[in-house]
Amino acid sequence: MSHIYMEQVLSSNLVISIDAMGGDNSPRVVIEGLAIAAKKNPDVRFLLFGDEAKVMPILTQFPALQKVCEVRHCTEMVHNEDKPSQVIRNKNTSMYMAIDAVRKGEAQAIVSAGNTGALMAISKIVLRTITKIHRPAIVSIMPHRNGKYVMLDLGANTECDAINLAEFALMGDILARHTLNLEKPRVALLNIGAEEMKGKEEIRQAAKIIKHSHMNIDFIGYIEPHEMSNGVADVIVADGFTGNIALKSVEGTAKLVVRLLKDSIKHSILAKFGLPFMLGVMLRVKKTMDPRLYNGAMMVGLNGLTVKSHGGTDALGFSVAVNNAANLVRQNFVATIKSEIENVDLDELSQEILYDMY
Amino acid sequence: MSHIYMEQVLSSNLVISIDAMGGDNSPRVVIEGLAIAAKKNPDVRFLLFGDEAKVMPILTQFPALQKVCEVRHCTEMVHNEDKPSQVIRNKNTSMYMAIDAVRKGEAQAIVSAGNTGALMAISKIVLRTITKIHRPAIVSIMPHRNGKYVMLDLGANTECDAINLAEFALMGDILARHTLNLEKPRVALLNIGAEEMKGKEEIRQAAKIIKHSHMNIDFIGYIEPHEMSNGVADVIVADGFTGNIALKSVEGTAKLVVRLLKDSIKHSILAKFGLPFMLGVMLRVKKTMDPRLYNGAMMVGLNGLTVKSHGGTDALGFSVAVNNAANLVRQNFVATIKSEIENVDLDELSQEILYDMY
Repeated sequence: MSHIYMEQVLSSNLVISIDAMGGDNSPRVVIEGLAIAAKKNPDVRFLLFGDEAKVMPILTQFPALQKVCEVRHCTEMVHNEDKPSQVIRNKNTSMYMAIDAVRKGEAQAIVSAGNTGALMAISKIVLRTITKIHRPAIVSIMPHRNGKYVMLDLGANTECDAINLAEFALMGDILARHTLNLEKPRVALLNIGAEEMKGKEEIRQAAKIIKHSHMNIDFIGYIEPHEMSNGVADVIVADGFTGNIALKSVEGTAKLVVRLLKDSIKHSILAKFGLPFMLGVMLRVKKTMDPRLYNGAMMVGLNGLTVKSHGGTDALGFSVAVNNAANLVRQNFVATIKSEIENVDLDELSQEILYDMY
Repeated sequence: MSHIYMEQVLSSNLVISIDAMGGDNSPRVVIEGLAIAAKKNPDVRFLLFGDEAKVMPILTQFPALQKVCEVRHCTEMVHNEDKPSQVIRNKNTSMYMAIDAVRKGEAQAIVSAGNTGALMAISKIVLRTITKIHRPAIVSIMPHRNGKYVMLDLGANTECDAINLAEFALMGDILARHTLNLEKPRVALLNIGAEEMKGKEEIRQAAKIIKHSHMNIDFIGYIEPHEMSNGVADVIVADGFTGNIALKSVEGTAKLVVRLLKDSIKHSILAKFGLPFMLGVMLRVKKTMDPRLYNGAMMVGLNGLTVKSHGGTDALGFSVAVNNAANLVRQNFVATIKSEIENVDLDELSQEILYDMY
């Protein structure tokens, strides 16, 4: 299919590329999710990469969606057990082709519910890291007591040095200003104690670099995980291993409490009488904690926008990831990060700081 | 005070040494907690280390407790901001003296709500690590969907190598058999993915060592934090940084959900009608998640039993920590760990495994 033809079909200038084959129940969940997202985002068109034999029978059930979709057939896909080193060599998978559409300028963002490691690896190879950023990070927006916060890295980098962490802080600050509409986000490093001496060496060094970064960041120091939900910080920075552990602990506990409530109500006749009165409250709490409404982690630090949907989410969850991608494109997020980062040289700064220490 | 006099006063053979000055509201919370614990444990006597001028006025309000207590006056105490390197040099603090009583054989366990880093540092210096264990760990027993699990390390060791992690697995297995009464606990390593290749190098190596340790451990592989509360593992092993992050994330989220429920009920007239019916359910869930009922983290791997109470807990919470200490003494836990560990040489094993790999 020629490039010219594509531009005719996709006459809107907001195009999102979709890996139709990623996730547990693809392509059904993906397409049903797109149908929800398309209603909410009438200015967006979709470029779907996947097996036509599987995609078309479902897509034709959603005529309104079909009108804003172009399907690009591909025979291969990335599997959950595939290693990043393998997937970057196969340019014929739906994931690779969907990401490559962003590099070619055919789309402004890519959304996939597939293998996270593969998505990050291909995005890095194809889109490349932006100048002055050493490593991209996975970012999510999370609920706290009276609002939301930005958290990164959630799993892209198992090990990080102080400069990586400081770069995450910079990108998180920019993201919080643009997505949470905060003038001066409070930025914190995740650690196991609030005292300066606590935690790992790289975290303590990152604190020094951020403090001196001339980026005018409102750095509030360390935050412990049990304070994350109190709303004291707007950006929380960690290495990918630690961030992933914290994120999944939060998810697991929220589920446990809801399950305990359900089990307990099931075994209480009295509670069943009270249930109709409490339904509103329960639904409100459930909604605040609903992981589907926070679906769509962004990969930041790349020359292009990759959004990762949870592999096990449903259509509503996938649609939220697509909404997030569309909003970030509208805000011109990648260009903003690039231009703001241009003025900071953390490498040089960290050398100065380390020099001062000895 | 002579050793002979002490043995007369403390005629029971189960003696627990108490740092009366540790924690946020000491010595009041400590003594009120002991009053609760004393009722539950009539076979236990207490050796209290603290400032008599502060301890006695409160202790005399609990005559039954006073009968089973001996107070040892000390003028100094460890503060929250004290560094481990300082506190190990001052032998006159209530914490140091309380730990030293275990070394002298005057008590079989020590409980403190003071500074965790200091408690671990003094315990290591005074009680020493048991043979074949390189580093002690902080262990807690946590709630899951339909029972409890043992988790370690929760913060003693910020960085751990594969052998440390394997040793924690061994100690956790023993602890789960004795405190949770399980014949064959399922042991897992905390990681950010279930696949073999995921996570950090030291975790992957630890998995190999545990599999080959001839300790007959039921090793089930990696567990992700959101699975911890599902009850699939009885022992969960992590380095101290990761374990602490996971533990505090769980605590924070449990609090967030309870707070959201409360806030939501406050703003709903309908919910207030239903509340009386739901009270039983709410209380049951609150009780299952109540951090006070899981208070009292043990330091394992030492020639003596140190139990750390949360610094901000109340009397009930402190009493739970004392109960835990008493139960572990009754089960002769330290001697059990020592004798079971005697037959394993993980150092040698890890050399074999690394040799096989190349």
